[in-house]
Amino acid sequence: MSPEQRARLASLDTPALLLDEPRLVQNLTKMAKRAAADGIPLRPHLKTAKSIDVARLAADLGADRWTVSTLREAEYFAAHGLSDMLYTLSIVQAKLERVMALNRTGADVAVCLDTPEGAAAIAAMALDGPPLRVFLEIDVDSHRTGLRPGETRLIETAERIAAAPRLSLAGVMAHGGESYASRSRADIEAMAEQERSIAVAAAEALRAEAIACPLVSIGSTPTACFSRSREGVGELRAGVYMFQDVFQANLGVCTLDDIAASVLTTVVSAAPHLNRLIIDAGGLALSKDRSCASQDNDCGYGFFTDEDGRWIENLHVTGVSQEHGYVTTRDGTPLPFADFPIGSRLRVLPNHACMTAAAYDRYTVLTADGGTDDWQRINGWEPYP
Amino acid sequence: MSPEQRARLASLDTPALLLDEPRLVQNLTKMAKRAAADGIPLRPHLKTAKSIDVARLAADLGADRWTVSTLREAEYFAAHGLSDMLYTLSIVQAKLERVMALNRTGADVAVCLDTPEGAAAIAAMALDGPPLRVFLEIDVDSHRTGLRPGETRLIETAERIAAAPRLSLAGVMAHGGESYASRSRADIEAMAEQERSIAVAAAEALRAEAIACPLVSIGSTPTACFSRSREGVGELRAGVYMFQDVFQANLGVCTLDDIAASVLTTVVSAAPHLNRLIIDAGGLALSKDRSCASQDNDCGYGFFTDEDGRWIENLHVTGVSQEHGYVTTRDGTPLPFADFPIGSRLRVLPNHACMTAAAYDRYTVLTADGGTDDWQRINGWEPYP
Repeated sequence: MSPEQRARLASLDTPALLLDEPRLVQNLTKMAKRAAADGIPLRPHLKTAKSIDVARLAADLGADRWTVSTLREAEYFAAHGLSDMLYTLSIVQAKLERVMALNRTGADVAVCLDTPEGAAAIAAMALDGPPLRVFLEIDVDSHRTGLRPGETRLIETAERIAAAPRLSLAGVMAHGGESYASRSRADIEAMAEQERSIAVAAAEALRAEAIACPLVSIGSTPTACFSRSREGVGELRAGVYMFQDVFQANLGVCTLDDIAASVLTTVVSAAPHLNRLIIDAGGLALSKDRSCASQDNDCGYGFFTDEDGRWIENLHVTGVSQEHGYVTTRDGTPLPFADFPIGSRLRVLPNHACMTAAAYDRYTVLTADGGTDDWQRINGWEPYP
Repeated sequence: MSPEQRARLASLDTPALLLDEPRLVQNLTKMAKRAAADGIPLRPHLKTAKSIDVARLAADLGADRWTVSTLREAEYFAAHGLSDMLYTLSIVQAKLERVMALNRTGADVAVCLDTPEGAAAIAAMALDGPPLRVFLEIDVDSHRTGLRPGETRLIETAERIAAAPRLSLAGVMAHGGESYASRSRADIEAMAEQERSIAVAAAEALRAEAIACPLVSIGSTPTACFSRSREGVGELRAGVYMFQDVFQANLGVCTLDDIAASVLTTVVSAAPHLNRLIIDAGGLALSKDRSCASQDNDCGYGFFTDEDGRWIENLHVTGVSQEHGYVTTRDGTPLPFADFPIGSRLRVLPNHACMTAAAYDRYTVLTADGGTDDWQRINGWEPYP
């Protein structure tokens, strides 16, 4: 860390969200290269970063299509010049006017759905704007929702879209969320193959009925990293890879040294009788996500580095109240209290970066040139701006 | 719900945070009466509501002192005219200038700490402003942090404060957070008695050393509701009682009909093969808090009411992704899909209101007069404004 960066961190009120640009760029580059090696376009998911500055770095590496998790993201990114976005929450009538308003300005937002009823509702609407691209969501692992290759509802849903003059069936999409339960690289590869093969089977089922299905869009960070085949796949989606987190490190998708987002925190108290440090990053600053609890290398609510980003192997956040984080040793040995005096600062590596980052409206960025910057995040659901 | 309120809800993008003013006022009134019956001033904790409109309702019922969980809250509430606030995260040097800046304007923010080192650090500072009131935090249940009545560190910490010309020892404070693990009213009363007796014992230990300890400040929503004695207690603190939530209902502190905050959500999909509805309130809209998991009446990530606020007994949120909520029946029977068509709207009663509300910058308020209003929330940690 440069003297300028050190001074900036010292000036920050804590808790604060930090973003390490060199790590971010490295993560973006690795995934872009991986997709390029597979010969598959990447459609980065912007739900983790929610930042135009991050999206621009991905665009510099070739990305020209995007995934968004909220309409507010779609509006924000469209206002900053992005187009060709896939909104991944099943579309309903009440949300469609926000999509159409964007598409009338050329944002080219595609939607998804996965029921005949949902398709009928959208098909019945008078849509003012260019034809709306619709993806069918396919259930590849019972993780979320979706249609399945063998069921008549798949064909029925597709036919309703194909028959609607203002709708265009863009393809099928799937998210292999169960890959998060993997225990090994072989598990992830098996989940990736399941995600691919079922999504492709759904596309083939449509084509067998003479329904055009141009694109098969799949992905999650683990399955975008490790796979045995990409046959029939038209694009890959992933998001958390940009920042990575302890959960992904435990999956073997990255190392702790790849984690680009962290929470700067201050030691505010020490309770020797509880073998505990207290930090000013609690349930709101870190999120109450405990996904790691199911993994071997459980970090509690986060691991630690020092201010310079060097991992402190034996510390973790064992519990949180709203504003208090409770820290102790991982192996139960006495805390070296003298190493972490009251007022000293640490960085928390998040359990789940998407959840942790959402508590903050901006990033303090440690830039590649040794400087710092402020990048905005776009949280929430209300119309932008 | 009035036609005006119904129309306003229909116009909202979801997810959205709703606040039922009559329930809020009822919750505020009950707690104000309870404290008045005990003859103890209430110091409402504003960490749950983070709203000046809510604080004003509490002030109308007699509150004239406040608890805050962040300095941003302190700055926001001071800017809106509140004074006499207790900031409940152990104070450190780097945070003190924000407190002193407020106190120079008359905000009268008190701080707390619980280590000799922390006291020495504050005592060593040149403080520009009126004398700073300092509470000693007492550990009553090993839940958080704090000094204990029997230890020499308690006296040592108090003496460092008492000896500092710019510091004023305001008293002792404790939060019986372990009351959240109670399984019965008798459990809560026992925790309340433990909270009271240990905090009072700490005050007596100071007085035995001829150290003035004017105030004993204790509280949590459960222990503020049920207690066997208030002897020696100078004030009560509580926060979540304003909104209540499923966790508090399961504790027996309120009923589900008392819950004032809810998340308006839309059914966006249905997966019959998974016996699942999908709503647009996921891990960010509801939080990933799973405190209820340890209780008998586990609600998952939330229970449901219809748009009018009537409990739907057999539904709960069993899982969440970032933007998806997964809903099924509590008893495992088939979902009545026809009752919850795609596009229909529901309200989620939060597992833990403090966490859920933090995802939103404002409340849509269903006011007591049958109208609606918008109330601001003040999230985050950066200086206000």
